[in-house]
Amino acid sequence: MSGWVKIAGLGPGKEALVTPEVTEALSQATDIVGYIPYVARIAERPGLTLHASDNRVEIDRSQHALQMASEGKRVVVVSSGDPGVFAMASAVFEAVDNGPAEWRELQIDVLPGITAMLAAAARAGAPLGHDFCTINLSDNLKPWEIIEKRLRLAAQADFAMAFYNPRAKSRPGKFERVLEILREECEPERLILFARAVSTDEEALRISPLSEATPEMADMRTMVIVGSSLTRVIERKGDPILYTPRFIAKDQAQE
Amino acid sequence: MSGWVKIAGLGPGKEALVTPEVTEALSQATDIVGYIPYVARIAERPGLTLHASDNRVEIDRSQHALQMASEGKRVVVVSSGDPGVFAMASAVFEAVDNGPAEWRELQIDVLPGITAMLAAAARAGAPLGHDFCTINLSDNLKPWEIIEKRLRLAAQADFAMAFYNPRAKSRPGKFERVLEILREECEPERLILFARAVSTDEEALRISPLSEATPEMADMRTMVIVGSSLTRVIERKGDPILYTPRFIAKDQAQE
Repeated sequence: MSGWVKIAGLGPGKEALVTPEVTEALSQATDIVGYIPYVARIAERPGLTLHASDNRVEIDRSQHALQMASEGKRVVVVSSGDPGVFAMASAVFEAVDNGPAEWRELQIDVLPGITAMLAAAARAGAPLGHDFCTINLSDNLKPWEIIEKRLRLAAQADFAMAFYNPRAKSRPGKFERVLEILREECEPERLILFARAVSTDEEALRISPLSEATPEMADMRTMVIVGSSLTRVIERKGDPILYTPRFIAKDQAQE
Repeated sequence: MSGWVKIAGLGPGKEALVTPEVTEALSQATDIVGYIPYVARIAERPGLTLHASDNRVEIDRSQHALQMASEGKRVVVVSSGDPGVFAMASAVFEAVDNGPAEWRELQIDVLPGITAMLAAAARAGAPLGHDFCTINLSDNLKPWEIIEKRLRLAAQADFAMAFYNPRAKSRPGKFERVLEILREECEPERLILFARAVSTDEEALRISPLSEATPEMADMRTMVIVGSSLTRVIERKGDPILYTPRFIAKDQAQE
């Protein structure tokens, strides 16, 4: 039997958000590779070997997966959310691109998952219901300047914005800088969703206008979604609903 | 028993991409509301009423769903993909926002799904592996000028771009205009993925450089993903792999 690699998205946390396609792949695997907390979500069983590794070793992990597949193993590389959004799929393809020729001929599939921004948006309402952009605020793998440039252009385009990895101990002050840039580019009433650990027991949602937003509202487990200029809140007895209307009038677009 | 509305994403087409959460909601529903081809995906059963309606009646459909829930029905509003991305969630919340006060107190949940861009990206590799934006190219609900403005700013930000609804008979020439704008803003080698009917029997993927892209490569069932300046192809015996690396070097960002 020939080996393969499937790069699978486990969704944001809740098992009911794992697709049957991913569940099937996990049941066929001989080996699971991934970051420690994601591998911890996989049930042990006879014939399955779990290979959990630390953060920031994505290329080593990818090479390990590809090497095992070339030896005939059936390897699932697990990511949280969707593997194609700031997760393992690009890392595996970088390893293929720079690896031995035989790796190119392996069967490699990406199995999509519910990425954090879609789960967070769904819990709050529909803040991504119109055009939006998705930015990783970590400068581990790109210069900080490009993040600032993209923030300003995204604000000028009036995109809603979904931010992954908004804060880390290794970059103190950077999320404060993001809020500063947003204050320069957007009106004070602009609505921001801070959605922590969505679909887990620790889920916590908070909506704040930009003028009252503080860096402490986010941590590494928080998805931050900045509304467009048209994003609105519906107040009610229960949790408020945050949504972006589908319609933009002529005069709204010309501002 | 009190009624509710669940706005559910059926994913791009393949049943293995429907989340268990959505399957469970469908099994509890008394009524299904949605656009004809999406309602056609739901199996009939005793006790379940299917309400299929035509395109462009999203607000009527939303009001119908909310009215039935206020009468005690358990209503699932179905979208393809994810309901929060150019689909029914915003329409339902618009109807709540403009409807009778009692609708605000209904239990309304959004159940996320695999949206078309994630499914298309997964089939091609990982073109959305770095910062990206998502634009609906239909000008049914917004002025065309804002689409052009967003395209230019997104290109200047060097986002990868996912386009929903790239073409329609009602707006001939508009997608040609999109390609023109991209040619003004991007280099001719820029890679574009045309992913038609992903995860269905009619799936067809094609990768073209911007210089060779033509409007006919897309139709209403096509997801178009324009790479960033760093998006690459890995050629091999099987289908090529399209991916965007995670890393941006200092000199790449300064261009």
